[in-house]
Amino acid sequence: MVQQMTEDQILLLIIKYLKELKKEEFQNIIEELQPYDIAKLYKNLPSKHRYKFLLFLNPRQIAELIQELDIKLQHDVLHKLGIEKSSTVMDLMDNDDLADLLNELSVDKIQEYLTAMKTEESETVKNLMRFPPDTAGGIMTNRYVWIRIYYTVREAVDKFKLFAEYAESLYYLYVLDENKKLVGVVSYRDLLLADMDDKIEDIMFSRVISVPVDMDQEEVAKTIRKYDFIAIPVVDKENKMAGIITVDDLIDVVVEEANEDIEKLSASGKDIDFNTKSHVAAFRRLPWLIFLLFIGLISGSIISNFESTLNKVIALTYFMPMISGMSGNTGTQSLAVVVRGLASHDIDRKTIFNLVLRELGVGLIIGVINGSLIAAIAYFWQGNPMLGLVVGSSLFATLIIGTLAGTIIPLLLYRLKIDPAIASGPLITTLNDIFSLSVYFGMATIFMSHLL
Amino acid sequence: MVQQMTEDQILLLIIKYLKELKKEEFQNIIEELQPYDIAKLYKNLPSKHRYKFLLFLNPRQIAELIQELDIKLQHDVLHKLGIEKSSTVMDLMDNDDLADLLNELSVDKIQEYLTAMKTEESETVKNLMRFPPDTAGGIMTNRYVWIRIYYTVREAVDKFKLFAEYAESLYYLYVLDENKKLVGVVSYRDLLLADMDDKIEDIMFSRVISVPVDMDQEEVAKTIRKYDFIAIPVVDKENKMAGIITVDDLIDVVVEEANEDIEKLSASGKDIDFNTKSHVAAFRRLPWLIFLLFIGLISGSIISNFESTLNKVIALTYFMPMISGMSGNTGTQSLAVVVRGLASHDIDRKTIFNLVLRELGVGLIIGVINGSLIAAIAYFWQGNPMLGLVVGSSLFATLIIGTLAGTIIPLLLYRLKIDPAIASGPLITTLNDIFSLSVYFGMATIFMSHLL
Repeated sequence: MVQQMTEDQILLLIIKYLKELKKEEFQNIIEELQPYDIAKLYKNLPSKHRYKFLLFLNPRQIAELIQELDIKLQHDVLHKLGIEKSSTVMDLMDNDDLADLLNELSVDKIQEYLTAMKTEESETVKNLMRFPPDTAGGIMTNRYVWIRIYYTVREAVDKFKLFAEYAESLYYLYVLDENKKLVGVVSYRDLLLADMDDKIEDIMFSRVISVPVDMDQEEVAKTIRKYDFIAIPVVDKENKMAGIITVDDLIDVVVEEANEDIEKLSASGKDIDFNTKSHVAAFRRLPWLIFLLFIGLISGSIISNFESTLNKVIALTYFMPMISGMSGNTGTQSLAVVVRGLASHDIDRKTIFNLVLRELGVGLIIGVINGSLIAAIAYFWQGNPMLGLVVGSSLFATLIIGTLAGTIIPLLLYRLKIDPAIASGPLITTLNDIFSLSVYFGMATIFMSHLL
Repeated sequence: MVQQMTEDQILLLIIKYLKELKKEEFQNIIEELQPYDIAKLYKNLPSKHRYKFLLFLNPRQIAELIQELDIKLQHDVLHKLGIEKSSTVMDLMDNDDLADLLNELSVDKIQEYLTAMKTEESETVKNLMRFPPDTAGGIMTNRYVWIRIYYTVREAVDKFKLFAEYAESLYYLYVLDENKKLVGVVSYRDLLLADMDDKIEDIMFSRVISVPVDMDQEEVAKTIRKYDFIAIPVVDKENKMAGIITVDDLIDVVVEEANEDIEKLSASGKDIDFNTKSHVAAFRRLPWLIFLLFIGLISGSIISNFESTLNKVIALTYFMPMISGMSGNTGTQSLAVVVRGLASHDIDRKTIFNLVLRELGVGLIIGVINGSLIAAIAYFWQGNPMLGLVVGSSLFATLIIGTLAGTIIPLLLYRLKIDPAIASGPLITTLNDIFSLSVYFGMATIFMSHLL
């Protein structure tokens, strides 16, 4: 019945059951819903019903619900539940989500919850919280199933069943030796296709693809994309198994990293989304803008050095916005290609060399075409062939400089282990402004006598 | 042994075995490698060894290898294999990958391969090829396991085992009625936890989350991210099951879409990566650049209308790059926030209203701060309080206009069902140039008498 109902109909029914205290009917609906849908329901529920809603859920359902809420609503739920019930729920949460949640709380509060939790669970979470949140260690969970190399398939399947309820990913079983070192992996598919009496040793993959705990999450995402795995094991320096990372967490990482690249390319400030308040967004954007304001003034002071040139040929100003705009545009184009390339390629000396050479070629081609075009336009517009020559050759030069700057600056930053996306669009644009205006007015001054 | 070897050592060993025709030793290594690694090996192999390499692989291994290669190498492999062996390999490939591969071939070639393939497989692929490549239908595969509602858990497990070798995703079993309509889903975990004699009907989820065949792949990715599924079923208009999409394909979609957003935001042209040739990259980038060149000339002609103003106060030119740069920068910032927001949010009237209001607030705050700052600087630099006032108030006005343009233009395009990212950074920047210069010189002209 529930499957044909709209979200609104379900919401109304849930409110009805809550009012009439019909827990069984309530549960019949909830059991048919996905955690994401339950969370949506909870968010749409008038606040006065929320406490009762939580009371009607079992701890596992609350654990699933909480993982789908934003941090503010998470804290609200914990507050409503109280320490004791919260800790029961926390015991059931995925460790990685729980670590994220706790990381946002005060030290006192964290201690309070951890003390109330099962020792085993709280130890694991404390362990996870030691890793920086954007590394493999920070996003892994330890809810995986491990087996011994001497198990038979039958024993492995039995252990698998036993842990099915608690494991986050059920696709792979990891084979550990007596020191917890990762020596093999078996997929569930392998188990299905093997004979019950086969030895794990004979069917396992022993060349296990794993990632170290301190690997950057973006690199982990690259790895899992290459191999099309559902989950990837995380190991410490001694190849001891530390946890697994599942692909559903990594898909979020990929989106996050792409957003970060765009944020930086557009210098739009960290973590601004549709829900950020005006003043918060403004103050996150201001540092860049003020920095760029001063860079813009440098362009101004360059122009002021050419005051006498300008005073004589005022028509030079007409082409200023075009010249500086174009070098900014081509720089941004190159930058975007480089930044996204770096996000999915491994880079060596040869790749860099080829890339710079390629962009030099691109700069030459677009320089010649746009330069000739504008030379003709300037000549016909202002009737001054010399002006056409100055404008055209300046555009030619600035397009090459702009293209190379947009390529070399991010590559240089990458080599220096600085995030290349930070060489943001506006920064490249503004730097290119300075280059291009200097070239333009420099040429104009040199050819001054011919311009008049 | 293989597990401790580096890639280069493995490559050398493989070449050795190929030369010595030691197929068994060769296979011992290959069996320990992932498809991605085998493909890398193949790419690094000198061409003269490639044919023998393929001969030493079995059809399933070739099928896995081919899926990891780029289109050029794929065709090369097919060519090396010949029609007959190619079709055997194609029978074993994932249908979605095969459809992509065939889509790149000539009509004659496609027909030739399809005729040589098993009828069942070729029918399926033909079916997949009917869907546009960026929709759910275009990226789905039909290698899933389906069961009937009246099955017991035991019967389901048996069917599962039978199909384990052929199914692409083994995480869910889909419950279909006699008309192939999707009526339920059971995860493998559910089967493990259930009793062998339980009925599927009693343990299945009947509120199945599915996507329609014509849904855009970006929307599919949004859905799977919300629900954290490993795979999602695809249905036609009558809710008949058409296929499944696995999360590993969607993670590629997410990266692709993010790259597209960045391409468009930076107007850097479609499909330029590290391997694109100079002239190809240049001609993909040119259309935007030439368009922006003409837009830049509009700025120029605006300035030319204020020739007399400029002639009197040449210092006005010093602040031109800063004013137009700043309005471009704030516009790009807003644009990036909107474009990425649209990629992960569902949008309604209220969200749009709040967003525009928020950005107005942002514009006001950054306008006041930057405007005051530049007014003071202009005053002290040029010693002209009136110039400070004109520059400051112009910057104030253009920052507000720039911020709103960067917000409203992409939202408008979104409403008109045009991809908002196309309102690219440079376009917004250049439009903001025009606004800002008009405001600046307009104000300067009005206050002319005071400036002198």
